[in-house]
Order: sequence, then structure tokens, then C-alpha cells
Amino acid sequence: MSVLQEISANVRNMKSMEYPVLARRTNQIQEELRKGVRKPYRDVIDVSWGDPHRAGVKPLSFVRQVLAACLYPKLMEGDRLMVDVRQRAQRLLKECAGGSIGSYSNTAGIPEIVQRVSEFITRRDGGVPCRRENIFISSGSQWALANILKVLVNSEASPRTGVLTPVPCHSTTILSLMALGAAAVPYHLTEERGWALEVEELQRALDSAKGVCSPVALYVINPGNPAGYVQNRKSMQEVIRFAAEKRLFLLADEVYQDCVYGKTEFVSYKRALAEMGPPLSETVELASFHTASKGLMGECGLRAGYVELVNLDPAVMKHINSLFSTNSCAPVLGQIALDVMTNPPQPGDPSYPLYMKETQHIRTSLAENVRRVEEVVNSLPGFSCQPVEGGAFAFPTVFLPPKAIERAKEVGMKPDTFYCLRLLEEAGLLFSPGTEYGQKEGTYHIRFCIMIPLDVMEELLRRLSGFHKRFMKEFS
Amino acid sequence: MSVLQEISANVRNMKSMEYPVLARRTNQIQEELRKGVRKPYRDVIDVSWGDPHRAGVKPLSFVRQVLAACLYPKLMEGDRLMVDVRQRAQRLLKECAGGSIGSYSNTAGIPEIVQRVSEFITRRDGGVPCRRENIFISSGSQWALANILKVLVNSEASPRTGVLTPVPCHSTTILSLMALGAAAVPYHLTEERGWALEVEELQRALDSAKGVCSPVALYVINPGNPAGYVQNRKSMQEVIRFAAEKRLFLLADEVYQDCVYGKTEFVSYKRALAEMGPPLSETVELASFHTASKGLMGECGLRAGYVELVNLDPAVMKHINSLFSTNSCAPVLGQIALDVMTNPPQPGDPSYPLYMKETQHIRTSLAENVRRVEEVVNSLPGFSCQPVEGGAFAFPTVFLPPKAIERAKEVGMKPDTFYCLRLLEEAGLLFSPGTEYGQKEGTYHIRFCIMIPLDVMEELLRRLSGFHKRFMKEFS
Repeated sequence: MSVLQEISANVRNMKSMEYPVLARRTNQIQEELRKGVRKPYRDVIDVSWGDPHRAGVKPLSFVRQVLAACLYPKLMEGDRLMVDVRQRAQRLLKECAGGSIGSYSNTAGIPEIVQRVSEFITRRDGGVPCRRENIFISSGSQWALANILKVLVNSEASPRTGVLTPVPCHSTTILSLMALGAAAVPYHLTEERGWALEVEELQRALDSAKGVCSPVALYVINPGNPAGYVQNRKSMQEVIRFAAEKRLFLLADEVYQDCVYGKTEFVSYKRALAEMGPPLSETVELASFHTASKGLMGECGLRAGYVELVNLDPAVMKHINSLFSTNSCAPVLGQIALDVMTNPPQPGDPSYPLYMKETQHIRTSLAENVRRVEEVVNSLPGFSCQPVEGGAFAFPTVFLPPKAIERAKEVGMKPDTFYCLRLLEEAGLLFSPGTEYGQKEGTYHIRFCIMIPLDVMEELLRRLSGFHKRFMKEFS
Repeated sequence: MSVLQEISANVRNMKSMEYPVLARRTNQIQEELRKGVRKPYRDVIDVSWGDPHRAGVKPLSFVRQVLAACLYPKLMEGDRLMVDVRQRAQRLLKECAGGSIGSYSNTAGIPEIVQRVSEFITRRDGGVPCRRENIFISSGSQWALANILKVLVNSEASPRTGVLTPVPCHSTTILSLMALGAAAVPYHLTEERGWALEVEELQRALDSAKGVCSPVALYVINPGNPAGYVQNRKSMQEVIRFAAEKRLFLLADEVYQDCVYGKTEFVSYKRALAEMGPPLSETVELASFHTASKGLMGECGLRAGYVELVNLDPAVMKHINSLFSTNSCAPVLGQIALDVMTNPPQPGDPSYPLYMKETQHIRTSLAENVRRVEEVVNSLPGFSCQPVEGGAFAFPTVFLPPKAIERAKEVGMKPDTFYCLRLLEEAGLLFSPGTEYGQKEGTYHIRFCIMIPLDVMEELLRRLSGFHKRFMKEFS
């Protein structure tokens, strides 16, 4: 398949929007269940989103207490809330115009919060300095990415601007590229090596773009989504060298940096780049994205994220500054969530014990979920799941029998969508099909969120196992 | 001045961004005050935004209590919160995925909230039906407007797409048009007739666009911003007939619909259109915008608004649907604020008395502020303020002496920016200059927010009067 064909196929997949079929059917099924229609399940487990609270994960008390106190300062009267909650809320309210979270803030975020986010990044990266001028808080990381893409993509260029994007890749970025008239140049992660990102494949992708589009940036997702890999330093260094050599802007989606389960530690691209020293550390242009939606906090509904920009030309920074300025600020409560995320309670703080207990509970649940998913899914016939090293999703291959593929074609569906629809219908599980994310031709995958309570995961695996065996038998 | 010249002048004004000079100087002054530098004032009163909380207006208790209870449901234990607060929060949480405001919602908003917003619109418009499918909740009304403009504006068209926009007009809409490569075709409101919108002027503007751009829409702001007029039904009917005749899409910015102080009642364009009957009521395409940021609630920091679409082609609606779908949902707490805004406590509800007391206090303060502004400003030499009938701003003309205009030119500033800078420097008042909004050549204005506490307004008027007399004397 040529890159243009592959790009078009990507676009077609996105446009075909197979997922909405599943979402609509889910709504119908839920309506039927409410009306008392008998099904082999009492409810639909929706793990098609990276949305922990939706699946029953509890919010962190400290986060919610600080936010509630900022919203309704009367709560700080008396000693109902811990003293560190009250102190944090008081400090944050002082930093809001007029002492209210109901005021607009600077478009790049409340300056003091931006400052503390930059200090968090410096700590995270072992002292690599982060300048607050390089941080822009926005209504979610994807919104920030869309803004940076606006600067990178020349909508009127011929050939089109291209951005190297992984396969598989979550669809929001591809949609942002399409909206700007840019081309996604797919590079494939190597599934059989734990979804590794290999430089030879980047080179192949770049070559394939010749005469089709003009690539200006390389988009990486680490930890992965939907594929749950975590890049090691060596791999990142190779990617950075490649980007430098080909003069590609590095776009690093690092929103799952808190969610790492395997042996490979998370290292930010910023840190990997800085530690490579000059000239690379001073020249490779990088944007790194993070959010309050993902990670242990999982506050998707608050809508806040940020981007850090590294090595950008001052003139470009000025342009980006004015681009962010044409929009209103990010939701102030989301900004406050970012403050708490990057500055959680410390040992000795009154809220620390509960905070640790809650985060540890989520961490151990996730580790156990990952273990159980690999154990159960890999034991099923026709399934193969790479180790989930990070992120919020499992993305196993399912080897569909030819008869199932044929049946899918008969009903005009992608085979993995067909599988997901049957899974929904018969087992009350809402997964999303691999076709939404891109996959090697002839392979099929399913994605589901692993950031869910332990009991929900057990129920999910029970339903999946039962359904899958019946399905394979039916089409054997 | 030709329309192209005038458009370019508009763009130049926006790009020159005189306001940031004032904002920067404000930050410096505040820093100086913190360091103990002596000034004739103790603080800067910033009334350059339409941001009531910034200026000291208090949030409404019911709104904040419901939001806090949704954020931290433990607050609902015991009887600290009124029963209607708890019931509202419980219902809203049931409508959130996983029972948490931390989950994503549908991209057009939580369906039950969208439904209640549509019921509010029906009540507001005396029974004119509103369909929930026509409502899209978004991160603020301007964001919704930018999305609708994306559909209306063909960035590649030659000549460019045009949108008729009032002069004066707040700058965010002009910036949105510029970002899309569209032209703002200015029509002037008639200041001496209380900033009336006159159809002859719309015709003149449309004629002036010939050969320059191709106008597809007419943008109206009612109640006005920065000019505080409220349109009467007759004027709206004329505008609607004009739009119908010229096949213009009507964009109605109605975010200040709650803020009306004069004799003219607010009537929505939707209602005015519906009551004109067929064929107009079935053909004129209309988008009406509202928000939780403005009005009595003033929750700018929550970032939520909505648009209602009327008479759009189903194919266009589908396109708009997918446009909104490429973005994440609006902040869920903002959506909840919209729910409360459109469904406040009713007589008999436990929270009703306090809600009434608080909103009445804001209303009477606003009425008193308007009265005092007109009284004081119009008594100053060289000032003329039209009646403020609605909205959040006063926008008086200031007749600057020739010597002041000359001095401004010498220092490379617009005369009204020069006036505002001196006002800031000498009296600690941050206003914004008329040049930011567009004004007839040779006229100068200043804009300031009137949604501020009574005592702040008195202090503001005291400082303004003192400064203005000194300024006029200096340049007489």
C-alpha cells in the first residue's frame, strides 16, 4: 500500500467512524435494560474510553477537597477539612483575580500555577531546568496539540504538510491533522517486539512520503495509546537523533507518564534530549504534552492540560503566544487540578496518609489488572496480548477465523468492529475495534481501558472469556 | 475610508494590540505598589474585562453549593447544605458517566442538561419551541461562535468570505474572523440615537463590501458590548427582514440577556423571528449564543456556553455535529453551572430566599451603578455617555482636547490609549480604549465594566472625576 493509499485508508477509517455504531447500540441496549428486557448481563461495561471515573475509579479526595474549598470557601470554616487542604485552597484563591475561581485567568494559565508546573517538570527531569515562559496551560492536552499543529501546518502548502504518526494511534490527533489539511504519515510500531518504535521504520515512512507530502514533525506517544509500550532511553535517543537529522519537530504525547507498570521507567523526551548534550539539546524542537485527565487523577471532565515547548525560535514562541491569547483561559478549576497533580501532599502533611492510601490503591489495582489481563487474554485461543508496560489500555491482537471475517464482510463491517458489536450484544462489553487506531493489514485488535476497579476487571474478563470461546466455536 | 481600508484599519488596531501595553503597565504598577512605592492610590481597579468576580462581585451561593456538592459528594452527608442543593447535586451526578464530574460527557453536553437548557429557552421565549438537537454546549460562547464561523467561512474563497460586524464590537469575534481568513465588514451603530442598529447602515455596509468580499452572515450583539444598547422588537424585525432579503446567516450574541436596565425588555432573536411567522420564521438561519460567564452568575472561570441553531439545513447540522465531535466536551462543572443558570431555585425551594436576595442585590447594585455612571460621567466636561440600557459596560465618548491628541501622536499612541494610560498611571484605573472596539474616525471612547460592587463604583467615579478634570486642564 502506498503512503497516499495508507493515508487515505486512515482517513476513511476515521470517517467511517465505526465506533459511533457501537456507541449508538450501547445507548439502545441500556434503554432496553432499563425497560426490563432480559439480557445475559445486567449492565454494559463501557471500557472504550480512557476515562477512569466512567468505569468506577474513585476521584482522589485531596484533589476534590481542594477544588470544593476553592469553589465554596465557606467550607474552610471549622475543621471539617484538613489544614493543608485549607491552606492550599487559600493560596490558590489568592492567585485568582478577585479571589474567585469564577474569574478569567491569563490565557497561558494562572502565573503562579504555571510556575509550580515548571518546578514540577524540573524535579521530574532530575534538575533539567524548565522555564515558565515555555509552559502553556490549555483546555486539555489535545487542544494544546491542535494549537501547536496550527503553527506547524501550512494549510495552503502543496504538497501538503505531513506529520509522522504511529500506527496504532488514538484518533483525536489524526482528526486534528485532518482538520488542518495535513497528512498523517503512518509509521508502524513493531507489535511482536512489544510495540517497539524502530528508527528503520521511521526512515521507511519518511521515504514513503516523498512526492506525497512534506513532513515537518514526528508525533510520538509515550507511554503508548492504544499500544501500552514504554520507550526506553536508548530508543528515545535514536528517535531524537532521527528528528535532528531530518529536521523534524518532535511532538511528544506524554499524558500517561504516571501510568507505568513494567520494568521500563518513564523518561520524558525533554530529559532524554537535555541529557544528550549540545548540539542536540539546544537545537531539537520539542513540544511535550501532559494533562489532568489521565494518570491517577483521571479528571477528564475538568478539561485541563499543558504543553511545554523546548528550543523554539523566539519569533515562533511569540506567534504561539498570540495564538493561545486569542482563546480564553483554560477552566480555572482544571488549572487548580494541574496544580495539585504536579504538587501532591508531601510526607508530614495531614492529607498525605489518605492521599498515599488512595494512590497506592489505584497503583496496585492497575498492576493487578495488567497481570490478570495478560494472564487471561493470552490464555484464550486466538488472542495475543503484548505486555502492557504503561498507559491505560490493553490492545491485544485477535486472530479472527476466516468465517468470521467473511460474515463481517457480508454485513458490511470491518471484522474487528463486527467482533466488538457481537461482544457488546452478547456480553455487554463496549470495547473499541483496532480499525479505529490503524493496524497492519490483515490484523485485528481490540482496545479496552484497564484503569478500572478490580471487581469490574474480573467481571469484564469473565464475560470476555465466555463470549470469545462461543464466538470462536461459532465461526470455527 | 473604503471598506477594505476600514477592514485593514480594524485589523491593524487589533494587531497593534494597544491593550497589552496597558495590561503590562498594570502588572508593573501592582509590583511597585507591593514594593511600597508611593502612589496616589492603594490599588489598581481593573474594569477592563467583563469579569464581575475579578471586580469583587460575589458568586451566587446556590451555584457554588451545587458545584461543590457535585465535586465532593461527601458534603451532602448531614444537613449542612439545603435539601434542594443536595437533590440537585444528586440528580446531576446521576447524569454524569460513572456518577463523577471527572468523566467526559457527550461532546454536545450531558443530554439531560441539554434538554433542560432547551426547556429554559422555550419558557424564555413564551412557548416558542426549542429542540434539544439544536443545542450545543461548548467551552464558552465564543468557542461555539468560532465553530459556527468555521462552517460559514470558506477560507479558500476569492473574494474572501465577509461577515457584517458592528462598530463598536468586542475584539474576540473580530479575532476569530481574522483567524479564519474572513473579512469583518463594519456597520456603525448610531451613537447619538443610543447606539441604535439602523438598517440603512447595514445596507451601506453591504454595498461597501461589493468587490471586496462576499458577505454571508450578519453578526449582532444584543444587549450590546461595548455599547450598552438593547434592541427593541421593531428594530430586530427590520434586521431579520434584511437578513432574509440578503440571504445572510444571523449570528446573535445574546450573552448579556440577563443584564437589562432600561425600559426595553430583552427579546431573543429566536422569539422575534418565530413571532414574525412563515415564511421568515421557517427560513432565516440563526445561531444564538449564551454563556455562564456573563449575566448575574458571572462564572467566567468555569468556561461554558451554548449555541442554539435555528432553521439550518440537516446536512449542515450534520457537519456542525461532527465539527463539535472532534473536540472534547465542555468542562462538566461549567455544564452544571449552565443547568443552574437556566433552572434556578423556584419559590418554595429552601434555597430560593437566599438566591433571590443575592440576585436582587446584584440587580439593584447594577441599576444604581448605571444611574451613577450616567449622572457623574455626563456631568464631566468633555464626556458624553449614552444611556446604558443593558450589558456590562459603559462606553462613553470622551472629547479629547487637540493638545492631548497631539501629545498622543508624539508618543506614538492612539489618543484614547494615551488617555487610558494616563488614567492608569495617575488614578489606578484600568479601562480599555475605544480603539480596541472600533469607533468613528475622530471620535474617542473608553470602556469600563459596570458589574462591580457599589463601593468600588463610587471609588472609580471619584478617581475618574479627579483625573479627568486635571487631564482636561493640562491639555486645555
